[in-house]
Amino acid sequence: MSDELKNLSQEMLPALEDEMRTVLKMEDTPPDPFFGMMQYHMGWVDAQLQPVDEYGGKRIRPLLTLLACQAAGGKWSQALPAAAAIEILHNFSLVHDDIEDASPTRRGRKTVWNIWGEPQAINCGDAMFAVAHLTICRLSERDVPPETVVRAFRRFDETCLNLTHGQYRDMDFETRNDVRVDDYIKMITGKTAVLLSLCTELGALVAAQDEEVITHYAEFGRNLGLAFQVIDDILGIWGDETKTGKSAATDIVTKKKTLPVLYGLERNSALQEMYRVAEPDNDFVRQVVEILDQTGAREYAESRASTYSAAALWHLEVARPVGEAAEALSQLAAMLLQRDY
Amino acid sequence: MSDELKNLSQEMLPALEDEMRTVLKMEDTPPDPFFGMMQYHMGWVDAQLQPVDEYGGKRIRPLLTLLACQAAGGKWSQALPAAAAIEILHNFSLVHDDIEDASPTRRGRKTVWNIWGEPQAINCGDAMFAVAHLTICRLSERDVPPETVVRAFRRFDETCLNLTHGQYRDMDFETRNDVRVDDYIKMITGKTAVLLSLCTELGALVAAQDEEVITHYAEFGRNLGLAFQVIDDILGIWGDETKTGKSAATDIVTKKKTLPVLYGLERNSALQEMYRVAEPDNDFVRQVVEILDQTGAREYAESRASTYSAAALWHLEVARPVGEAAEALSQLAAMLLQRDY
Repeated sequence: MSDELKNLSQEMLPALEDEMRTVLKMEDTPPDPFFGMMQYHMGWVDAQLQPVDEYGGKRIRPLLTLLACQAAGGKWSQALPAAAAIEILHNFSLVHDDIEDASPTRRGRKTVWNIWGEPQAINCGDAMFAVAHLTICRLSERDVPPETVVRAFRRFDETCLNLTHGQYRDMDFETRNDVRVDDYIKMITGKTAVLLSLCTELGALVAAQDEEVITHYAEFGRNLGLAFQVIDDILGIWGDETKTGKSAATDIVTKKKTLPVLYGLERNSALQEMYRVAEPDNDFVRQVVEILDQTGAREYAESRASTYSAAALWHLEVARPVGEAAEALSQLAAMLLQRDY
Repeated sequence: MSDELKNLSQEMLPALEDEMRTVLKMEDTPPDPFFGMMQYHMGWVDAQLQPVDEYGGKRIRPLLTLLACQAAGGKWSQALPAAAAIEILHNFSLVHDDIEDASPTRRGRKTVWNIWGEPQAINCGDAMFAVAHLTICRLSERDVPPETVVRAFRRFDETCLNLTHGQYRDMDFETRNDVRVDDYIKMITGKTAVLLSLCTELGALVAAQDEEVITHYAEFGRNLGLAFQVIDDILGIWGDETKTGKSAATDIVTKKKTLPVLYGLERNSALQEMYRVAEPDNDFVRQVVEILDQTGAREYAESRASTYSAAALWHLEVARPVGEAAEALSQLAAMLLQRDY
């Protein structure tokens, strides 16, 4: 990690963690088991609600917000409530996703529903959603004008609605055989890109930038999210196990309809047939990858990833970010975009 | 129904329905099946997403908001977004409650999870939660000042957090044998009273009333909610089947720990033993009701209901509501409080 990003992260992340711990009642005595479930999910306590030293997550999203605010000429500390709200929103969605996907573990620990049951886990997610909103309200305490707070609220909830729409599409796609590349881009825009877009937009908004600059920051985040997701799709098929930490071709084994697969399905009827009937085994994986290589699915996905990456970096450049935070923001974007295939 | 309440309801309810239909995309063409699930839950379309004439619910909560706004000297139309947001919030919580309670039907129709499955129903509720917030944002379009909108947001989400905390306690109580009357009052405050309190508070807030008056409206709603719930508890044991529409002693058959039962359990060890081990049959019901009658559980509950009712009416009186809406508000409160036992 380069110096600017390292320095600013070390300054920002503890303040972010403090903000989140305050709104999620981490310092309350006696501890409340209701908030305990949320604290567990955040990685602060274990299943017996005892504090742990573990690190809860990479906190990339809130870091984007804080860096964008500073790079747009604002004070990053003013954007802390927005950054914390986004990270709590992201975590709320994971609590519900884990129920929807019936995932027993996350980050090597049991998921909330797997410890406290589905009914309490649904309710725990709802509570975190409410807390995320209350965190946005705290912008008022950092001298952000009320008009800006209302606008932050509107953008926050428009994004939440897009996230749930993306999640709807994602679940719907699993049962459909007619998903096209365009549908897929809409889906990942909702599931991934709008949230990264909100991160950078709210940073610029709190920095009181003009409309044009705010739009460039939003577009920087959106394209960054799209590029990130498409790269993830490529890694899910052609990724190097030793670098990604996932087993090779994991998305083929699960028959996940990612961008390269959808591109191949639109062009190859043998592949369509295989996805309709075959049970994935080693032979299936080998044949699918062969067909995808032949149809040029990898080149297509790589070219789309490059287009999104270039658009992201262009929007960042024309937004004219300043100072150490500008450097750090470029570095963070590069880290997200230059993962080894 | 008396004239004032009837007249104002006829004026307000269609406008409320319009506001909710707009934010839930009822008029969009082509219709979006994602919003279709929400429209189904609201009672506007059937499971095939075809429009129906059915009436979706009593809309008591939003009516309280609109009447409170008008009675507090405001224009009720300014409070429409707040009223619609509260009704959508209430309905979101029902979508998730139905999953948590595994309820197959509601208002004589299949529940959302029972048609579209649990994962989509969880996500549908989350989406409605986001829409409820976006509806609050629409206060800005009705000339409510941004400071007031931010305050409405804070109170809205503090209430959401209280609702989830109440729901947590309710589910937790089912598995516990040490629930006391005080815990129960906390639980119903969260599950029922805070939402009615929000209704009347936001009405007065939008009417730009001073702090003291806003507090009286909030306390009117809170006490009304507590009285309503305790009366519901009494009806659940001693209610007249022909009037309540529920079978007699329904809460005893399900061993629900309502206020009269908890009062009895704190005072009678035979009852404790029965609730710990016995399977509810006709004999169980008869014996429990007998014990409750002996311990004075009914008188206790009736006296608490009276205290809350009196407090509600006192707070309304000192808030000095004006005009036709003041009459209508009293009438609505009386309807909620004077259900036949």
